Amino acid sequence: MKHFYFLMLIFICLNQGNAQSETDSVLLRKIYNLALSEPKGYEWLEYLCYKVGARLSGSPQAQQAVEFTKKIMDTLQLDRVYLQEVQVPNWKRGDQEIGRITTTKKQKIAVRVVALGNAVGTGKKGIEAPIIEVKSLKELATLGKEKIQGKIVFFNRPMDVTKIRTSEAYGGAGDQRRSGPSEAAKYGAVGVVVRSLTTSIDNFPHTGALAYQLNVAQIPAVAISTQGADLLSQMLQKEPNLRFYFRTTCEMLPDAVSYNVIGEIKGSEKPEEIIVVGGHLDSWDLAQGAHDDGTGCVQSIDVLRLIKALGIKPKRTIRAVMFMNEENGLRGGIKYAEIAQQNQEKHIAALESDGGGFTPRGLGIGDETAFAIINQRWAKLFAPYMVEIQNQGGGADISPLRNQGVPLMSLNVDSQRYFDYHHTEIDTFDKVNLRELQLGAAAMAGLVYLIAEYGL
Amino acid sequence: MKHFYFLMLIFICLNQGNAQSETDSVLLRKIYNLALSEPKGYEWLEYLCYKVGARLSGSPQAQQAVEFTKKIMDTLQLDRVYLQEVQVPNWKRGDQEIGRITTTKKQKIAVRVVALGNAVGTGKKGIEAPIIEVKSLKELATLGKEKIQGKIVFFNRPMDVTKIRTSEAYGGAGDQRRSGPSEAAKYGAVGVVVRSLTTSIDNFPHTGALAYQLNVAQIPAVAISTQGADLLSQMLQKEPNLRFYFRTTCEMLPDAVSYNVIGEIKGSEKPEEIIVVGGHLDSWDLAQGAHDDGTGCVQSIDVLRLIKALGIKPKRTIRAVMFMNEENGLRGGIKYAEIAQQNQEKHIAALESDGGGFTPRGLGIGDETAFAIINQRWAKLFAPYMVEIQNQGGGADISPLRNQGVPLMSLNVDSQRYFDYHHTEIDTFDKVNLRELQLGAAAMAGLVYLIAEYGL
Repeated sequence: MKHFYFLMLIFICLNQGNAQSETDSVLLRKIYNLALSEPKGYEWLEYLCYKVGARLSGSPQAQQAVEFTKKIMDTLQLDRVYLQEVQVPNWKRGDQEIGRITTTKKQKIAVRVVALGNAVGTGKKGIEAPIIEVKSLKELATLGKEKIQGKIVFFNRPMDVTKIRTSEAYGGAGDQRRSGPSEAAKYGAVGVVVRSLTTSIDNFPHTGALAYQLNVAQIPAVAISTQGADLLSQMLQKEPNLRFYFRTTCEMLPDAVSYNVIGEIKGSEKPEEIIVVGGHLDSWDLAQGAHDDGTGCVQSIDVLRLIKALGIKPKRTIRAVMFMNEENGLRGGIKYAEIAQQNQEKHIAALESDGGGFTPRGLGIGDETAFAIINQRWAKLFAPYMVEIQNQGGGADISPLRNQGVPLMSLNVDSQRYFDYHHTEIDTFDKVNLRELQLGAAAMAGLVYLIAEYGL
Repeated sequence: MKHFYFLMLIFICLNQGNAQSETDSVLLRKIYNLALSEPKGYEWLEYLCYKVGARLSGSPQAQQAVEFTKKIMDTLQLDRVYLQEVQVPNWKRGDQEIGRITTTKKQKIAVRVVALGNAVGTGKKGIEAPIIEVKSLKELATLGKEKIQGKIVFFNRPMDVTKIRTSEAYGGAGDQRRSGPSEAAKYGAVGVVVRSLTTSIDNFPHTGALAYQLNVAQIPAVAISTQGADLLSQMLQKEPNLRFYFRTTCEMLPDAVSYNVIGEIKGSEKPEEIIVVGGHLDSWDLAQGAHDDGTGCVQSIDVLRLIKALGIKPKRTIRAVMFMNEENGLRGGIKYAEIAQQNQEKHIAALESDGGGFTPRGLGIGDETAFAIINQRWAKLFAPYMVEIQNQGGGADISPLRNQGVPLMSLNVDSQRYFDYHHTEIDTFDKVNLRELQLGAAAMAGLVYLIAEYGL
């Protein structure tokens, strides 16, 4: 008889497990249905792109984006919507940049360049100097002061097109933009031209932040389009004595006040356990910041909208955060983590969408234990939606939470097109597909709901 | 000692297995590297789209496409390149179509329509009649002759946006376009207006073939854009007595001569075992037929190119086929299967790419036994490329081979954007991403190589 009860107990437990997972699968279906049939995120994104537009930290548009996203969340009947003040760098691009190659016969060939974010300007006259091509920081070091002094350094290592995930290719080439200017300055370079970080061969220069090192001369730096880079490289092979001219009037102003925008649904049973979902609200100043990262913002708000609209009462607290200043300072992410620690908040998960609003391929869990749990419990639930649980995840804005032991996660999307648009003038609303965007919001809402319901 | 030899034997076999799979994984990496770094398919597609353009069966452009793809294959040093003659329907759209709603107050509102493929025209005067909306063939039957006679039937069931695979949503709404006209004619309808088959709400009408039934009156039929359909439906709710006018001058001419274009690498060990890889060369006449199915054609040729360029000598015969007339007759696919049977050819696999040149999600194997074998043997090889072996696959052009017991397969791609462009004026080259296209070619080449090497 003992055995019988024991078996019964197992049977009941198993059945409850099944029933639970059936309920969850029905709920996930509801989330997807609503996300696809009422594409609110897409509508919000349209506004953010066309009515607000480019919104670099410290700009009036960044402030408008703060107000707009707060306003949307105010309509969602959340338990709390608030701003979190943060001091941000206030970098201005200034006039449209000028770049040109001058041949030994004094022929001038215009090429498209844009200043790297956070760079100093050249002054109104611009700078002209001989230009030398290198493929890596290592090659730069090998050439040394003798070959570099007084020159403009042209970093021209392309992103590796054979990488399947373009983010890996980006990672493999990004040191040139980030560290190239200070490294070149150490050898006496007067300026830097960096090949745009994209797998596409076109005429759109891609901006992005550099990082000047302390106690190293700050020299001006621009990105050149990949077509321009190929042209310059070919010309240098024939005429190593080319000169290059560029003019940038960018400058760093004193820090400005800005905000993270936060909306919250309070947990009904364990309100002290918080799940954060977010994207970054600032964007580069060249376009609308559609894929980078308007999509992540509207998806994060959509997570709250979907959960509210379906009448779900999450057991744990769900918080959507529009982080400010991911692009050229990460101040919003840092501030958020600081305040979380000050307030002794207990974050049990942080999920970011900052890879563009493309078709989801996976939910990436950047924490071994959390990955094992989520994969074992819920992988099956997401399979009908062609979303895998993957063991790589995270995001810049949520990365400061890692020190507090928070499992970092990301929406992992199809990455093939992202770097065609990234940090350029063509990162615009028309590049975003409604269904791809909304599938992302649904996947995020599904994961957030499950963590809120069952914990980790 | 016996045991020892036995164990040694097992060890050697296992090691050979591993070595083999290592070689295969290296080869697959080479295929992907070449496909991504030398994107020939993309270059060919650019020519096919911009220099040839729309290429409906029987058109001069279809003939140019035949000549162009033959010419490319002639440069690849294949063992055989040839044309296979096929009689094709020769349908002409005629003048640009006119569509308009007439209110009871005689107000006229223009809406965008296009004739359905293979439809009869209205004559130069067009037709005007009361219009009645239905959501299904079933609803049509319920209304019957009394309500339908003398009217234009407006089929307005949308594609189900909540389906994750858009091809399923297409399948679920397609009967209206295909069978709607003849079914409506049975109840005395004088014309048919079909909601465009797309999940997108926009102003591009989507054409596509209808299928008239034998011994049923052939009535004219057009597709209306989804924005037009929504407008018409809203207006009908307020004013059920609206009239609709449309004018089409399309007509079916006598059959024309055309060709399947075929290129072949002969197998070195089992040349009699053939693997077919293909797409369809014809396209609708409204745009460039970029995703439908220029991409499938250039990917199929690229399979041969990649294999040749890497010096692979396949053990079995690999044949790329550009099928003619998938869109409005399938005559190329039928002819190919007929001749294969006549010649007692042994096809061991047929792989089609006709879902657009988007990021590959899987290689679809539409045959249980073949799926089990391929999944067990090679799934791991494709995992680094984010390509699954899936158990759903096939394609219209290769479907006539099914009767000969040939396992049918497909490149299964991300389906979210396909029906935004499908059969419209915006199915153009700029909608195709180089990397997405080339990843598809690489996945196809990988599978074809493995089948050629090891059989099934």
